[in-house]
Amino acid sequence: MSQRLKVLLVGASGTLGRAIHKELATRHEIVTAGRTSGDVKLDITDCGSIEKALAQVGQIDAVVSAVGEVTFLPLSEIQAQSLETSPYALGLKNKLMGQVNLALAAQTQLRNGGSITLTSGILSEQPIRAGTSASMVNGALESFVRAAAIELPRGLRINVVSPNVFQESMDGYAPFFRGFEAIPVSRAALAFSRSVEGLQTGQVYKVF
Amino acid sequence: MSQRLKVLLVGASGTLGRAIHKELATRHEIVTAGRTSGDVKLDITDCGSIEKALAQVGQIDAVVSAVGEVTFLPLSEIQAQSLETSPYALGLKNKLMGQVNLALAAQTQLRNGGSITLTSGILSEQPIRAGTSASMVNGALESFVRAAAIELPRGLRINVVSPNVFQESMDGYAPFFRGFEAIPVSRAALAFSRSVEGLQTGQVYKVF
Repeated sequence: MSQRLKVLLVGASGTLGRAIHKELATRHEIVTAGRTSGDVKLDITDCGSIEKALAQVGQIDAVVSAVGEVTFLPLSEIQAQSLETSPYALGLKNKLMGQVNLALAAQTQLRNGGSITLTSGILSEQPIRAGTSASMVNGALESFVRAAAIELPRGLRINVVSPNVFQESMDGYAPFFRGFEAIPVSRAALAFSRSVEGLQTGQVYKVF
Repeated sequence: MSQRLKVLLVGASGTLGRAIHKELATRHEIVTAGRTSGDVKLDITDCGSIEKALAQVGQIDAVVSAVGEVTFLPLSEIQAQSLETSPYALGLKNKLMGQVNLALAAQTQLRNGGSITLTSGILSEQPIRAGTSASMVNGALESFVRAAAIELPRGLRINVVSPNVFQESMDGYAPFFRGFEAIPVSRAALAFSRSVEGLQTGQVYKVF
């Protein structure tokens, strides 16, 4: 019931990552990872970097991702373009496939029954202006997790947390999220605890 | 109420496309499009082809997409890979960005209040084995449509139809869809009629 888990936390230095660290560190061993800081260096857009970081960390009970970039751009400024030059490429390569690749690669280091927890966001359901890329990517992540959950071996689990905008991020995001009931990031961190320390799989934990 | 609309139907020669044609052609002018057949040639993976086809067709009241390819592959056979070589690339470039680019480009030819209707599928919500790419892409499309709907100008509308597997496609798909209540493709075609001939926007019409 109160087993001490070894958790790889990717994006540990961000607003969300720090809140997850605070929530989990009292009970578990946290290995922090980030592009430029942390116990191990890990860039989710570089599969070699993912593999190298996982090899350094060794066997783990959980991987948590609190990272992912997308482009915010009004629809009127987006042209039909091949993926190489499309404004949608950043979200698809970074927040979507970066987290998907982390999930795929982490399987080799996860102990039986271990968990993968990714981050999507409220925009999958509730759109904002300039948010088509974020919505697309968040929706993709939530459906991916539902599908991957039924195919993972060895009792491995996968969930995704879909938070509202954070009170702590409103300095930058408020103009896009007028009227949204921003949440304290500590509330989002609780959902990661549910995923890591619970037994469910294939869930979208909505924190809004 | 019974205005005759000019509808560009992309993927007109497929199982779904032919059913949509049958449903709409009694009341509307249908311009058929496809990669290798139809009134105009249109390859959704080639933005130049999309632009050329739209220029040929001229002003329209609706564009309907009944196309999109994804890769079906067991999760155990999918490695973390950059998008260039990932099994997820086909779905992201073809069914997702192909349809997104069609929607973006079609705006220039759509009359005020005109509509865009895309195709996702039941796997966004209800996964099957080997279906992570399809689920990912369908979820992305549904969230994209919700977001794009609030930003489209001139009363333009966008919806997506999410059908169950078709009875007419069970010859090939049955092993993946055991126990699913396959629908006649004519039922899916009705949802396209609702989107094109109705007034709603940002909807996911589930036909399951």
